[in-house]
Amino acid sequence: MPINRSITREYIGKPIRCKAAICRKSGEPLVIEEIEVDPPKSWEVRIKILYTSLCHSDLTFWKLDPSVPFAGFPRILGHEAVGVVESVGKYVEEVKEGELVVPVFLPNCGECRDCESTKSNNCSKFGSKPFLGMPRDGTSRFRDMNGEVVHHLLCVSSFSEYTVVDVTHLVKIAQDFPLDKACLLSCGVSTGVGAAWKVADVEKGSTVAIFGLGAVGLAVALGAKQRGASMIIGIDLNQNKFEIGKQFGVTDFVNPSTCKEKSVSEVIKDMTNGGADYCFECIGLASLMEEAFNSSREGWGKTVIIGVEMHGSPLTLNPRTMLRGRTITGSLFGGIKPKSDLPLLAQKYLDKELNLDGFITQEVDFKDINKAFDYMVQGKSIRCIIRMDH
Amino acid sequence: MPINRSITREYIGKPIRCKAAICRKSGEPLVIEEIEVDPPKSWEVRIKILYTSLCHSDLTFWKLDPSVPFAGFPRILGHEAVGVVESVGKYVEEVKEGELVVPVFLPNCGECRDCESTKSNNCSKFGSKPFLGMPRDGTSRFRDMNGEVVHHLLCVSSFSEYTVVDVTHLVKIAQDFPLDKACLLSCGVSTGVGAAWKVADVEKGSTVAIFGLGAVGLAVALGAKQRGASMIIGIDLNQNKFEIGKQFGVTDFVNPSTCKEKSVSEVIKDMTNGGADYCFECIGLASLMEEAFNSSREGWGKTVIIGVEMHGSPLTLNPRTMLRGRTITGSLFGGIKPKSDLPLLAQKYLDKELNLDGFITQEVDFKDINKAFDYMVQGKSIRCIIRMDH
Ligand SMILES: [Zn+2]
Ligand SMILES: [Zn+2]
Ligand SMILES: [Zn+2]
Ligand SMILES: [Zn+2]
Repeated sequence: MPINRSITREYIGKPIRCKAAICRKSGEPLVIEEIEVDPPKSWEVRIKILYTSLCHSDLTFWKLDPSVPFAGFPRILGHEAVGVVESVGKYVEEVKEGELVVPVFLPNCGECRDCESTKSNNCSKFGSKPFLGMPRDGTSRFRDMNGEVVHHLLCVSSFSEYTVVDVTHLVKIAQDFPLDKACLLSCGVSTGVGAAWKVADVEKGSTVAIFGLGAVGLAVALGAKQRGASMIIGIDLNQNKFEIGKQFGVTDFVNPSTCKEKSVSEVIKDMTNGGADYCFECIGLASLMEEAFNSSREGWGKTVIIGVEMHGSPLTLNPRTMLRGRTITGSLFGGIKPKSDLPLLAQKYLDKELNLDGFITQEVDFKDINKAFDYMVQGKSIRCIIRMDH
Repeated sequence: MPINRSITREYIGKPIRCKAAICRKSGEPLVIEEIEVDPPKSWEVRIKILYTSLCHSDLTFWKLDPSVPFAGFPRILGHEAVGVVESVGKYVEEVKEGELVVPVFLPNCGECRDCESTKSNNCSKFGSKPFLGMPRDGTSRFRDMNGEVVHHLLCVSSFSEYTVVDVTHLVKIAQDFPLDKACLLSCGVSTGVGAAWKVADVEKGSTVAIFGLGAVGLAVALGAKQRGASMIIGIDLNQNKFEIGKQFGVTDFVNPSTCKEKSVSEVIKDMTNGGADYCFECIGLASLMEEAFNSSREGWGKTVIIGVEMHGSPLTLNPRTMLRGRTITGSLFGGIKPKSDLPLLAQKYLDKELNLDGFITQEVDFKDINKAFDYMVQGKSIRCIIRMDH
């Protein structure tokens, strides 16, 4: 049965009561509860979520030690999604009721020096701190049935039938775009494809090494394949990832646990006759970032850091190994500028230049959302899509 | 009196006896002695040096502990120079007798994958190890009057009336190019200008921070000024460098010793409203490279490492500070491809788009070469030009 995309004008300006999957305690199963979602304030948009998916970062926030600064319980997780606009706050002209939108964790105000430049996707007006609330006033739009505040995640919080998102955190897409594929564009897949296309700018015939074959790493492979890379090496401790990776363009595989006395970078240098043209770190381990850098070719080798280091470990490089033209760079969201670049990625899918179908390994109903966590924890999913129960 | 550029055909195929300034012991004054310079072997060129200049790297090799692997005494230092071809070895077709050439420490074979790419200046066929001898067979072309071998430096060894250089290590320039300016193009000045133009690709209106205002740092400033940078901050412990820097485009100055409780990067972030667009490290200190990186702007800030770290210290970065679009890259010779790019720089000088005159602070005769070392050690020179006694 197709998902119900229709909206009602009944709650405009009023709270909506609906269901949300609440993370009440670190690492414990989410609890589906009734909540109240406030109407959007100025520059805000209330969205009826249709599909959402589970990203690795949700897992990170789910397991967060309650004592770290950006932890907050109870909280509504989820930041990959697609939905329709239910109502808009004052000053919102970009979208209107009923339009299909993808919320994104990265803001794009369109007015700051970074948003105006083609070289940056790092909106300097709104930054993107892991707020517990909305970006402008820091407050929450969610309350549970006891009237207690429920926190936001990354300005999205899509594990709810309705959410409120700042207008700088959403992107309008084609009304007929397939809904399950749309939510993939919201974070991980766009990050990987963007890293290959925009940050690294992978060239035809080049060699690529991808450290970590999760959804992001596989999306890097897909992007590199689409650019015509001749050799795409996947590096992962899970041997099964090679077969999976092949579907996304991975041509060769290195399992660090079977490298014996050689380092991974030595193995990759041997395979590529001196080092890969482009290296991508998709895990967030400083030691792996160093290995990626050391795997890159002298002359023009470029290493792109995608993973977020969560342990506070420093990245230690030998400056002399940098002198012969190696580059290391970092990016968020694959260098993608949400409002201008996401619609281009969406169009690539519609034009069959970018096949997103392979990323979806499971689909569950919203009431079974904890299964999505199980699949990911067990390494069984690339993306598990969660279908809302509207 | 103009320098004698004429050559004789008398010694073709035979050793030439001439004067050279020999570095016999680490850190001791050079000794002008008679030596014999062998005729060029295949792919080699014997050059009559007309002008040479002292670069900081000569000082580094001059003071080298004799126990380090690339130390070698006695040795003929010098790697910034201009001269005329006296004779050529077998297979040399690129230059002929009497032509004006600039020798360079960086090879450019023109045939390897790197030389063929516009993205690299790191000739992968010849590398550029600090050989004690010639690049192809490792042997020396110099002998002293006792028949003892005298070592080469960086495939150039220009502190001699005649030297032998591999054809991959020289660049032909316009016959009427001013000789004293020509030798500036050979290393330091090209490195700085190239780093600004080719590696960083400095844009009009941008902010630039230059760590270390030696010849290379000043050349970065000149290159950035020529590109229309709006703010060029020089960072140096020597306060006098601000007045000197102004002539090369430096608009603002930071003396780390007067920063008080703030770090240099905090001061620069304040001055530039968040960080410089381009940062250049021109000294070779890992701690300064970190400071340079931390001074760069999020979104698109690019840090270019030019200095060669000689202490084996690691470069330690916080990977999370890299995520928002910062880049760090290293380069040798400012990304300049000797054979194709040096003639373009030379033309920029002739077209008065690149003023090299300010770099020459002293000129001495060859017999007084040790004065050039004194000037540099005392911080009194940018470039001291050494005029050969032909
Ligand atoms: Zn912005
Ligand atoms: Zn994500
Ligand atoms: Zn080459
Ligand atoms: Zn030099």
